[in-house]
Amino acid sequence: MKPAVVLLSGGLDSATTLAIARSQGYEAHVLSFAYGQRHSRELDSASRVAAALGARNRLVLTLDLRAIGGSALTGDLAVPKSRTAGEIGVGIPVTYVPARNTIFLAHALAWAEVLGAEDVFFGANVMDYSGYPDCRPEYLQAFERLADLATKAGVEGKSRFRVHAPLIRMTKAEIIRTGHTLGVDFSLTWSCYEPTADGRPCGLCDSCTLRKKGFAEAGLTDPLCYAA
Amino acid sequence: MKPAVVLLSGGLDSATTLAIARSQGYEAHVLSFAYGQRHSRELDSASRVAAALGARNRLVLTLDLRAIGGSALTGDLAVPKSRTAGEIGVGIPVTYVPARNTIFLAHALAWAEVLGAEDVFFGANVMDYSGYPDCRPEYLQAFERLADLATKAGVEGKSRFRVHAPLIRMTKAEIIRTGHTLGVDFSLTWSCYEPTADGRPCGLCDSCTLRKKGFAEAGLTDPLCYAA
Repeated sequence: MKPAVVLLSGGLDSATTLAIARSQGYEAHVLSFAYGQRHSRELDSASRVAAALGARNRLVLTLDLRAIGGSALTGDLAVPKSRTAGEIGVGIPVTYVPARNTIFLAHALAWAEVLGAEDVFFGANVMDYSGYPDCRPEYLQAFERLADLATKAGVEGKSRFRVHAPLIRMTKAEIIRTGHTLGVDFSLTWSCYEPTADGRPCGLCDSCTLRKKGFAEAGLTDPLCYAA
Repeated sequence: MKPAVVLLSGGLDSATTLAIARSQGYEAHVLSFAYGQRHSRELDSASRVAAALGARNRLVLTLDLRAIGGSALTGDLAVPKSRTAGEIGVGIPVTYVPARNTIFLAHALAWAEVLGAEDVFFGANVMDYSGYPDCRPEYLQAFERLADLATKAGVEGKSRFRVHAPLIRMTKAEIIRTGHTLGVDFSLTWSCYEPTADGRPCGLCDSCTLRKKGFAEAGLTDPLCYAA
């Protein structure tokens, strides 16, 4: 089996991405980050998802993105609540973390180089947050170009680094249906940006809102129990 | 003054790069990394160099590159000793750290975005280690292209991200002469990959060898006291 690094947050997008990589026959080396996110609960989910989907191994790296700041997910800004899907889709939300995907992909590249892997799977998606600059296809192509210039194997012409983003143009409902077909256990996944004190997903943040809407449109039942 | 992020390891290249940024009128926000390097002694040097050269502030981020491995600087491979400058210049040395510069620049980009800075200064150099893929001009240009696609301001056409690498084609002797002219106190800098138990630079690793040769060719005295 061909090795691939799979970025796994513990959310349903990255869980579905891992399932796709496995279904394509890749040996999955799963990479997660403890980056100071409010919702570090997602790391437990990532661990369970990786095991359930037969990941070869898993590396959790600690990053201090809180020291850099600039985002509601890592800083003092409030997480927006009770916005509609239409409101969420306008502009770049305060939950954008500056250069986070570049930092994540850079580490994935490092690990891929050590593993001798040419493939990285990444659950980027342009549909819901159309404003996230570092989820767009042209951004991912620019990263592939950079990667081939950055590494030993790329320079020697021995490898052609590829960022696979199989979800990039799917709606949330399509992602959920795809994951369902591939056997993803969504009860293991986590999406909420700001869980309640008793550990339930809030049901009101943008991430909960889009998840609920996605399950409704997919005609499937979300196994999570929301606070609201 | 225009803000810039300056990557500072504590070595003489990055110290000279910081001096150049200051001489060009930039307000320097200095970024260093504790990435599991054997020679973490360089971080103390970075602190002193930043203060001496009037950095506005300094951020030290911790990265776990040791968990990724693949390099003599972060792993179990031995640091080569007593190689000649000619031997050092052939191929990619084992002190290459996979994707390290991409990881460093990604963090610099994140901090620049939060600071509203468009400029990053980076002491990359192609002369001594001609084999390091992620020090080449075409690599740095690819990073600039990526950065403009990755960030809010770049997407909105409000900024044009630039990686300044003023040393890229200088010899070590030229770097030392430039730093000397700009008032860099080289006694504060640190280059050795593997200091002795009593805290002196070994004098035998590739980094010590190139530094000694550079001072000799520049006709200047290296203020450091080597073990060998």
